Amino acid sequence: MATTLKLFLALCCFISLINIPITEARIREYKWDVKYEYRSPDCYKKLVITINGRTPGPTILAQQGDTVVVHVKNNLMTENLAIHWHGIRQIGTPWFDGTEGVTQCPILPGDTFTYQFVVDRPGTYLYHAHYGMQREAGLYGSIRVSLPDGESEPFGYDYDRSIILTDWYHKSTYEQATGLASIPFGWVGEPQSLLIQGKGRFNCSSPGMTGDVCNTTNPECSPYAMTVVPGMTYRLRVASLTALSALSFQIEGHNMTVVETDGHYVKPFVVQNLFIYSGETYSVLVTTDQDPARNYWLTTNVVSRNATTPPGVGILNYYPNHPRRYPPTNAPSGPIWNDVKPRLAQSQAIRAHQSFIIPPPATSDRVIVLLNTQNNVSGYRRWSVNNVSFTLPHTPYLVGLKQNLLHTFNQVPPPDRLDLTNYDIRSPPPNPNATISDSIYRLKFNTTVDIILQNANSLVLNNSETHPWHLHGHDFWVLGYGEGKFDMANDTKKYNLVDPIMKNTVPVHPYGWTALRFKADNPGAWLFHCHIESHFFMGMGVVFEEGIEKVGKLPSSIMGCGEARHYNRP
Amino acid sequence: MATTLKLFLALCCFISLINIPITEARIREYKWDVKYEYRSPDCYKKLVITINGRTPGPTILAQQGDTVVVHVKNNLMTENLAIHWHGIRQIGTPWFDGTEGVTQCPILPGDTFTYQFVVDRPGTYLYHAHYGMQREAGLYGSIRVSLPDGESEPFGYDYDRSIILTDWYHKSTYEQATGLASIPFGWVGEPQSLLIQGKGRFNCSSPGMTGDVCNTTNPECSPYAMTVVPGMTYRLRVASLTALSALSFQIEGHNMTVVETDGHYVKPFVVQNLFIYSGETYSVLVTTDQDPARNYWLTTNVVSRNATTPPGVGILNYYPNHPRRYPPTNAPSGPIWNDVKPRLAQSQAIRAHQSFIIPPPATSDRVIVLLNTQNNVSGYRRWSVNNVSFTLPHTPYLVGLKQNLLHTFNQVPPPDRLDLTNYDIRSPPPNPNATISDSIYRLKFNTTVDIILQNANSLVLNNSETHPWHLHGHDFWVLGYGEGKFDMANDTKKYNLVDPIMKNTVPVHPYGWTALRFKADNPGAWLFHCHIESHFFMGMGVVFEEGIEKVGKLPSSIMGCGEARHYNRP
Repeated sequence: MATTLKLFLALCCFISLINIPITEARIREYKWDVKYEYRSPDCYKKLVITINGRTPGPTILAQQGDTVVVHVKNNLMTENLAIHWHGIRQIGTPWFDGTEGVTQCPILPGDTFTYQFVVDRPGTYLYHAHYGMQREAGLYGSIRVSLPDGESEPFGYDYDRSIILTDWYHKSTYEQATGLASIPFGWVGEPQSLLIQGKGRFNCSSPGMTGDVCNTTNPECSPYAMTVVPGMTYRLRVASLTALSALSFQIEGHNMTVVETDGHYVKPFVVQNLFIYSGETYSVLVTTDQDPARNYWLTTNVVSRNATTPPGVGILNYYPNHPRRYPPTNAPSGPIWNDVKPRLAQSQAIRAHQSFIIPPPATSDRVIVLLNTQNNVSGYRRWSVNNVSFTLPHTPYLVGLKQNLLHTFNQVPPPDRLDLTNYDIRSPPPNPNATISDSIYRLKFNTTVDIILQNANSLVLNNSETHPWHLHGHDFWVLGYGEGKFDMANDTKKYNLVDPIMKNTVPVHPYGWTALRFKADNPGAWLFHCHIESHFFMGMGVVFEEGIEKVGKLPSSIMGCGEARHYNRP
Repeated sequence: MATTLKLFLALCCFISLINIPITEARIREYKWDVKYEYRSPDCYKKLVITINGRTPGPTILAQQGDTVVVHVKNNLMTENLAIHWHGIRQIGTPWFDGTEGVTQCPILPGDTFTYQFVVDRPGTYLYHAHYGMQREAGLYGSIRVSLPDGESEPFGYDYDRSIILTDWYHKSTYEQATGLASIPFGWVGEPQSLLIQGKGRFNCSSPGMTGDVCNTTNPECSPYAMTVVPGMTYRLRVASLTALSALSFQIEGHNMTVVETDGHYVKPFVVQNLFIYSGETYSVLVTTDQDPARNYWLTTNVVSRNATTPPGVGILNYYPNHPRRYPPTNAPSGPIWNDVKPRLAQSQAIRAHQSFIIPPPATSDRVIVLLNTQNNVSGYRRWSVNNVSFTLPHTPYLVGLKQNLLHTFNQVPPPDRLDLTNYDIRSPPPNPNATISDSIYRLKFNTTVDIILQNANSLVLNNSETHPWHLHGHDFWVLGYGEGKFDMANDTKKYNLVDPIMKNTVPVHPYGWTALRFKADNPGAWLFHCHIESHFFMGMGVVFEEGIEKVGKLPSSIMGCGEARHYNRP
């Protein structure tokens, strides 16, 4: 680092001590103190991970081209940490993707780790913990990147708001993870609550609850209220970071026009229910054109699982009504949980805005078909792709690859596809075994890769889950969705090569397939995984390497574990 | 390491894979897998930390002069680890004391750390986690060092048994630690159970308990049964690793003859109740001379606190009675909790066995008087000595000192004593403020140091707690105990210089003082602290440095954090 830059950073650091991000500057600097605190987000008191005392954490506001600098101080006492910047491609900074085991060693208690990266595209992004199952403990927040001065969006609005939807467990991440990694398998069950921007409401009169652990009069768990002015148009950025649940989001009495997803402009379409999967972001336009004498419900409902989790509710508060005033109506009930058709239809409706189409390459150089299955491996319940259940190596891939430490992970690549000719995706796997491996896919730099995600039956009869797959370091073109087993001869002909949306997270629907295309043009090692926290923990992911020889010198700060430790120099 | 030694270690490693410690060899090698598991030690199901699936962990059996090698694999997922070998002086290996922040960086998830040290004295020792409050989560066990072949103890017995006494909380260590470090202060309260060798019994009909979390029919929480043959003499090694509680231990109908403590032979004396404080070990002789037609109670009771914790019970099982058969009597009730006199008397009764007196130096070179107080610092509840509340630095002292990184901790030493002329130890501190600091005492090598522990009133009126102080790296002579404020002119004259016992852990009684002497002859950095887990967490400790220039080359394996990281070389 040049001395002048160092001085500048030191100056920013000093200014940020008073905790006001620098506006109008090209560097947006944050100091975060991460620790455990007691909170009652749904009225039930438990430990949560906070950033500067808050969960969700502070929103990062930046402008396209800015450099975001976040100094993360780990005050978790005995537990390490890593933070992923979800949707930021980290071009030129693959070591700051924040994916423990892939791009960095974890941040130790007492350490301050500095993430520094450029936000090169406007849009709606996220950040969250990416270590163990810490995301579920409350470490997450929004990143909002605006256009450069003088540029404008292809749609108009008066105000801009962000909310993150989550589900919420009362058991700690340790308790959950220990169950998942045990024989017999211990499953935590459905989440206790759905939260809207960190607020929910658990029924404290449930058995076993006492006033000191569950108290519905606690102001912390009053419903989230979004105050709006009648007669205006709001850009509402809605994101999901659920641990498990696929959601339908609805605003009573108001339609939503979808205009952006994962940082890309959408050919506008109108929905009553927005289906949203963990890891996705959407911007919707909402016009406050209803009776201004009352408030309206915001609701989230679980879909795709026959969940016991009650709906999440918040309040669309028409100013000047009191924000705590409940709407006079019942909250709208959500869609039928097991009706896949409207969800598939919404997925297929998401096309690129006609003025912002990025044409995909007409053909691909490699096609990887990833069969998603649930498995039993040596008595452990796992998830796998192509019968390989993923496990992280002890030395992060980025270090192992860059320093040529090829013994740090399995060098035999996983299969590009299985022979599915006789595979019945509508039955549990005939042989539920799989291999647990840290092997990876190595992609030729700058080639075009197609990924077909093929869903199947889980180990339970007549059950196929929805898996939201998230790719680090890239956006991909969404070429198509379909039902049943992918047909290489015919389904490829139906690919949308005209106006495919680009995204970084996409669902594969029950018993269905999803086809993606991306350019392997970002040097680094990148995780591609199911964004359901427990599914990834149980092996549902793969890693892509591309252009490792083009990766610059790795910073010492990522080098605190395994063999990486020997490359840590002052 | 020489190649031959490496080969030898590799061979041992291979043999230890079949998990049988090598008998008769000079190296005792263990492979430990440390992880979270669900257990119900007192019938209440919660996460515990196990070693090879067990809590308490496996007992280390060795002979004087042996080298113990323990390969610790951290499988805690997101949490680090360190293990202390309590009572082992680590002469020549100060880096393997296992004290996170003092002698090493923590062991990361996925890492295997190898401890290697010589057990140079016969006796009864312990091991336990020494990071955050992990000890309370169940990571502990016994070390038993026997005499060389052909040598014998100064007392006879037929069988040798070990038990560890603990108390047990239902809240996780995270929940407890977060409360302790919060404003307002959150105190977990008294433990739910007392455990004997990892087994206790909680009343599952308490409010809020359901059958899936609390089940008294679970065999895991059947009372601990020690099976004995009538008419024999047992050496029973009793240790305490309570988080909080001072205990009285009793065997219904049987006297106990105290013969060893902390690895030193005691001038035998007989007790009905053995008072034992966290960090202490005792050997007592018990003769099974009672009616053999029945079983007898083993009991532990909390003393020194007006605790709600029910007594702990186990069964002394006279063979061939059934080990689950309850004695026909009520378990003996313990002594009155707030009667200090018998506890003080027992402390004073512990003298060195006349054939094993190690004469203390007649005078000391330095006298450090440590006033124990409870404090409020910037709204945080803390414990302090001499108004300094201890906090660990980010770079372990041993590394900071050895590598001369003097900026890594406060170089201004804490005071050797305060002027206590006008200090009323029977009232709460007039100024409850204190300084939080990582400053240390630097001792001149090979000098003799006296420590006077001076107890006082806590922040609560008419309350003074019992603090068991444990010194790492040394044994000390116990020169005396007294009531009230220590009188330098007169109390020093009453010091026992004739047959003082040597110990590594010693209580300071309510409103009393305890005087110790030790030789600063073990090069390294050594913690001296209250062994109550929450008290040390809240600042009740000091560090002594001596002979740092004589410390050999530090192993890379301890160098994973702070500035130590830069000294990690392959």
